[in-house]
Amino acid sequence: MTVIAETTQNIREYMTTLGRKARSAGRAMARAETAAKDRALAAMADAVDAQAARLAEENARDVAAGRERGLDAALLDRLELTPERVSAMADGLREIAALPDPVGAIDDLRSRPSGIHVGRMRVPLGVIGIIYESRPNVTADAAGLCLKSGNAAILRGGSEALHSNRAIAECIRAGLDTAGLPMDAVQVVDTTDREAVGHLITMTENVDVIVPRGGKGLIERISRDASVPVIKHLDGVCHVYIDDAADPEKAIAVAFNAKTHRYGTCNTMETLLVADSAAEGILPPLAERFRLAGVELRGCPRSRRLVPTMSVATDDDWGTEYLGPVLAVRVVQDLDAAMEHINTWSSGHTESIVTQDWSRAQRFLREVDSSSVMVNASTRFADGFEYGLGAEIGISTDKLHARGPVGLEGLTSQKWIVLGDGHVRG
Amino acid sequence: MTVIAETTQNIREYMTTLGRKARSAGRAMARAETAAKDRALAAMADAVDAQAARLAEENARDVAAGRERGLDAALLDRLELTPERVSAMADGLREIAALPDPVGAIDDLRSRPSGIHVGRMRVPLGVIGIIYESRPNVTADAAGLCLKSGNAAILRGGSEALHSNRAIAECIRAGLDTAGLPMDAVQVVDTTDREAVGHLITMTENVDVIVPRGGKGLIERISRDASVPVIKHLDGVCHVYIDDAADPEKAIAVAFNAKTHRYGTCNTMETLLVADSAAEGILPPLAERFRLAGVELRGCPRSRRLVPTMSVATDDDWGTEYLGPVLAVRVVQDLDAAMEHINTWSSGHTESIVTQDWSRAQRFLREVDSSSVMVNASTRFADGFEYGLGAEIGISTDKLHARGPVGLEGLTSQKWIVLGDGHVRG
Repeated sequence: MTVIAETTQNIREYMTTLGRKARSAGRAMARAETAAKDRALAAMADAVDAQAARLAEENARDVAAGRERGLDAALLDRLELTPERVSAMADGLREIAALPDPVGAIDDLRSRPSGIHVGRMRVPLGVIGIIYESRPNVTADAAGLCLKSGNAAILRGGSEALHSNRAIAECIRAGLDTAGLPMDAVQVVDTTDREAVGHLITMTENVDVIVPRGGKGLIERISRDASVPVIKHLDGVCHVYIDDAADPEKAIAVAFNAKTHRYGTCNTMETLLVADSAAEGILPPLAERFRLAGVELRGCPRSRRLVPTMSVATDDDWGTEYLGPVLAVRVVQDLDAAMEHINTWSSGHTESIVTQDWSRAQRFLREVDSSSVMVNASTRFADGFEYGLGAEIGISTDKLHARGPVGLEGLTSQKWIVLGDGHVRG
Repeated sequence: MTVIAETTQNIREYMTTLGRKARSAGRAMARAETAAKDRALAAMADAVDAQAARLAEENARDVAAGRERGLDAALLDRLELTPERVSAMADGLREIAALPDPVGAIDDLRSRPSGIHVGRMRVPLGVIGIIYESRPNVTADAAGLCLKSGNAAILRGGSEALHSNRAIAECIRAGLDTAGLPMDAVQVVDTTDREAVGHLITMTENVDVIVPRGGKGLIERISRDASVPVIKHLDGVCHVYIDDAADPEKAIAVAFNAKTHRYGTCNTMETLLVADSAAEGILPPLAERFRLAGVELRGCPRSRRLVPTMSVATDDDWGTEYLGPVLAVRVVQDLDAAMEHINTWSSGHTESIVTQDWSRAQRFLREVDSSSVMVNASTRFADGFEYGLGAEIGISTDKLHARGPVGLEGLTSQKWIVLGDGHVRG
């Protein structure tokens, strides 16, 4: 690894060099055969397993420094590489090796009246910059996904995890080397200077896309300042709408699962909408289940008449991603009012309707403009593994390119190919 | 149409209002049935035909004003709406009506082990801002494509075409009204104030994507300043590489067509690369054909030894889009040297190899990173109509989202849909 650059000038040069090396390695990765990429991933996994003791040691340095700096318990927990997490990291790399290679697939090859054949071939994006916070396992996951999809990666982790990330990156680079692939296909930004990020997100010449993973503040800052395109995930203010034609048992099961299966995830329901005519039958028993689970309910006036123990919801609640045991509840007139609420307040992540009514289910599916739209299913299903992508680099709330869970395919694009035999345009 | 806003404050308010109306109309367009959209397109075409005299009148005002302002002949030609062009505009709208509706198509619906069914549904992007220069027919083409794909459009044409654009937009809005669709699904920015563009490309709340159509200067300016994502087309520095295993007749036909079929288009060849061992047989006869067609050749030293009438090519020539009867010529060692040249100098638009060698054709197809990559075919085929898209809103040299010719599908994205029956995550 390069010695840490110390001055502004040095940082710029350091990042430019990183970018050039990544571009060149990316070209080699784009040509790499599936077998070589899979060999590299297997060798990386073996290196992670073999180096488990060393990873623990380097991680302990980060954790000790973090504790000294007064990082809070949640952050320290995310930072820690337990033996289970190291082993999960190795298994994750093996799972990526087992996924089908998206590169080179040709779709829709058709003959045209001019005699040419036209189709689209899936190709890597090139160089992907990943900017993430404290979880060191992202280093392996993100690198693995970038490599399998034929890209080079520049990884910039949190400064609090620098020793861990360096050690993991060494395993990854060793794996590349074993398979005869360029080690520079994965580079870790080896400086904690914040200026490095500023360069990374504006090096349009040598970086094709940025994937930030972390809190909303990080992602907003990067999106604002980046000139390289960003695949981003902002809030997950997800809704479940219980229609008046809902099966009450399914409604209660779906809503309860969507809120309580895990509180801290982006696909957790944050606002429950209930059709007026269904509210009286469903809200009181559902509220009782939430009460027993320790979930605080904040309701509109109509909800509070049915469940007086709810506290008062304000407009702020409709736009909040609680990421905890709190739920906003609103009774709405009908499907149109529910979609109007969602249009106004949703972050475009995931929404679900519970209904037995065919027409309303169809309208909800077509008209709600979120990255995942569901019928009679918990919002918690919005996930790359649940969707069958195998692994995900993130969940996009953007509309262009990748939407929702982003797997290997989201790290590729399609170019047009034309096959002729001396054809000219007349 | 609204009265032209005169102050900075007014322009901001005017654009914000336009954006809000577009967002609301876009929601209605997303739900619109195919039949209604097709009825609207047919009614627009009829209105254009019926209003041909009025369009000619309004256009004459623009042309007269342009002539007074001293616009050059090429610009005046692009500005003019001849009867043929008006009629072609109406036919174009009818052709868009005949294209299949991309919205609502569901791909890859699959059942997952959890019991849910997961697929992807094609949906409109929302609101599309089109910024273009002097050709008024873009108003109808772009509006038609945006509408058919279920989007709302905000059109900002060149100030020199304002009267023409207004008159065309009235035909379009009348067609929307006839079909019972919201007229605000197409709005023309009715001010020539340049600040309006600044607002349009930063209104992330109400504009989902910007498509600039025009010269490189316009596109670079917009890409630099936009916070809304831009689908952009920069240079077309396209290459043909004649491999040493090329069939000489096909090589000469393809290269000649790629250069001379039309000089001013972005998919015209600008640099010819020839394998060293093929150069002696192919370059002299090909140069003779170019000489007869009036094409100036600028060559590397080796080319000039074979064809001494060539002028000298410098590094500047390798990066230039001539858009005229000039061609840069370079003899390269082999396929690798050709791809190295392309990697260094191409704008990523379109490249073609002429070869009978299977392995080299395959390598070229896989390894060249441009939006269109061809074997034994003229670069002039890189076009939405030739590819079977029916019509194109532009050609993208970006890597994310749409690449190459962008038709209706490029104006949509895919959201995930999940169909359950009370499924919860375990």
